Amino acid sequence: MSGWESRVRRTVPYIPGEQPKEAGIIKLNTNENPYPPCPGVSRVLAELDCGRLRRYPDPDALMLREAIAKDCGVDVSRVYAGVGSDDVLAMCFLTFFNSSDPVLFPDVTYSFYEVWADVFRVPFETVPLTEDLLIRPEDYMRENGGIIFPNPNAPTGALLSRDAVEQIVRANPGSVVIVDEAYIAFGGESVLPLTERYDNLLVVRTLSKSHSMAGMRIGYAVGSGKLTGYLMDVRNAFNSYTLNMPAILAGTKAVEDRAYFESCRDKVVATRERLKEQLRAFGFSFPDSKANFLFVTHPEVPAQKLFADLRRAGILVRYFNRPRISDYLRITVGTDEETDALILALKTILKKETTA
Amino acid sequence: MSGWESRVRRTVPYIPGEQPKEAGIIKLNTNENPYPPCPGVSRVLAELDCGRLRRYPDPDALMLREAIAKDCGVDVSRVYAGVGSDDVLAMCFLTFFNSSDPVLFPDVTYSFYEVWADVFRVPFETVPLTEDLLIRPEDYMRENGGIIFPNPNAPTGALLSRDAVEQIVRANPGSVVIVDEAYIAFGGESVLPLTERYDNLLVVRTLSKSHSMAGMRIGYAVGSGKLTGYLMDVRNAFNSYTLNMPAILAGTKAVEDRAYFESCRDKVVATRERLKEQLRAFGFSFPDSKANFLFVTHPEVPAQKLFADLRRAGILVRYFNRPRISDYLRITVGTDEETDALILALKTILKKETTA
Repeated sequence: MSGWESRVRRTVPYIPGEQPKEAGIIKLNTNENPYPPCPGVSRVLAELDCGRLRRYPDPDALMLREAIAKDCGVDVSRVYAGVGSDDVLAMCFLTFFNSSDPVLFPDVTYSFYEVWADVFRVPFETVPLTEDLLIRPEDYMRENGGIIFPNPNAPTGALLSRDAVEQIVRANPGSVVIVDEAYIAFGGESVLPLTERYDNLLVVRTLSKSHSMAGMRIGYAVGSGKLTGYLMDVRNAFNSYTLNMPAILAGTKAVEDRAYFESCRDKVVATRERLKEQLRAFGFSFPDSKANFLFVTHPEVPAQKLFADLRRAGILVRYFNRPRISDYLRITVGTDEETDALILALKTILKKETTA
Repeated sequence: MSGWESRVRRTVPYIPGEQPKEAGIIKLNTNENPYPPCPGVSRVLAELDCGRLRRYPDPDALMLREAIAKDCGVDVSRVYAGVGSDDVLAMCFLTFFNSSDPVLFPDVTYSFYEVWADVFRVPFETVPLTEDLLIRPEDYMRENGGIIFPNPNAPTGALLSRDAVEQIVRANPGSVVIVDEAYIAFGGESVLPLTERYDNLLVVRTLSKSHSMAGMRIGYAVGSGKLTGYLMDVRNAFNSYTLNMPAILAGTKAVEDRAYFESCRDKVVATRERLKEQLRAFGFSFPDSKANFLFVTHPEVPAQKLFADLRRAGILVRYFNRPRISDYLRITVGTDEETDALILALKTILKKETTA
């Protein structure tokens, strides 16, 4: 090992879901929205005057933040924007989780939390979900250096009620509580209104899933002006210009087209409910999901086996080889056609496996 | 102050150059390229199939990195890409400047270095430039936790020879040496070939200035595969998907069109040389610049006064109210027309000021 290597920060990186290069795969592994972005997005990119690209983008991404503020019914000063919610969350870890007390998050949750804690040297403790894979608010009422969880939780899809979240926030005036609403758009009740009353609550969202914009990398946070101000200060000590011009322009259009968003969301929710019924009929069980994915387990066929069989049938879902959830698959809700293909493939696999 | 505020990371953010919203301003304050990006950039954005945006982008940005690798004549594994060189440099501070020994950089340099050191709690010492505002290699031959400087230096524009950089790299096998070549495209000799021989040398660049893509946020680094590998690991512990699809596609086109790049570069260099002559005739002095800006001082008129008078004349340049350089202005090389307007305005101002 060369001398300089002893000074390198070592970390265990997050492994994102596979992005297969082969064509024809039904991709139900990374919770992308199955519908394209709204028509305004193509229009604004096609009409972009590329001469403007020689200039730096607006470091405040004001146009986009104003559209988000209007959509959320809050003042623009309470909106922070970043390069996907991962960028927003990374900045949150750096900004707010900055003490020697352990940050708390569920043992079964978005696996990036542990990675950020590790890279920024943030002490943390994981809090076990209940047997039913649910968050219990009382477990978050002890000394801590911050709290973060997704709602609905990932990869379970289970939603915590607004009242339950409020209990957690109220019990922790000395910590910043971050609610990661990456999947709130698919029918869950947002805790955003609580940010009016609690200056330690930050709600983080992404346009990746809700607005079919994963390829554009846009996330945001809404909280008290104090929280977004501190976040902006640290962001400006990291990179002044994070969102590029196409992201600012296209993100604005996507947020403004509420009718299109709602029509896609309604389709995803309807497909999800149909998929739930079918999977129950196949013997699967799962926490009730308010997200655009289901987290399912089968009493007879191991998840890893199902994952491999589905892969062979050209359907990619997500399998996490981790404690407590190694018997589960996370399946993204696709189009009706993709869902039909999934159901058919599962039928064939289960028939073979359970009669073998 | 609320309880949670005691846990917040406080930092002194970098203040980027002003992006004025009023029209008609001649903007020579943030070193943007005065020419638009190559035609392939508009084409690829206009033709982008927006349905693809619902998917995550390639986390490896392979297409873009391959174009850069080809342009630089290196293997793609030795190329790392990020959201502008600020993002790349921030990741470098986090990854490589990770010991209790102080990182070294010049006292007069890119002011973001100090900001990153502060936000990531990296100990540092600044090394004074010579009286002539030049880097002296011998000053970097002492115990340190890493070394970083721009070449050409910013805001001076002065270039260090490849031999001088090699002396620094060779003398520091225990540290990572980062050469920030944000402005190398405008006629300076790159140290990139040295990365073949020194595994502790990382060269960082940006398409912002060289390829007129500031609005797209694309930067990159070239070094040994070990260095880029460590950088990628930390990046993947921060945000797996940083470059969005438009950036990957447009960046690739920009890098591939070498002829267009060269024609814009030649125009900027010719204008810069003409501006040098004119400013010398006005009595200004400055380090010889190999960048797309000049760092000038006038024996009779204070820089702050010149800055204000130019602003009133509709011309925005950069003034840094900092030790050692408060008598200097940094002036970006614009188009020939912008440069003519600058020369005319300076002539008028100097005439008034020096005969007053």
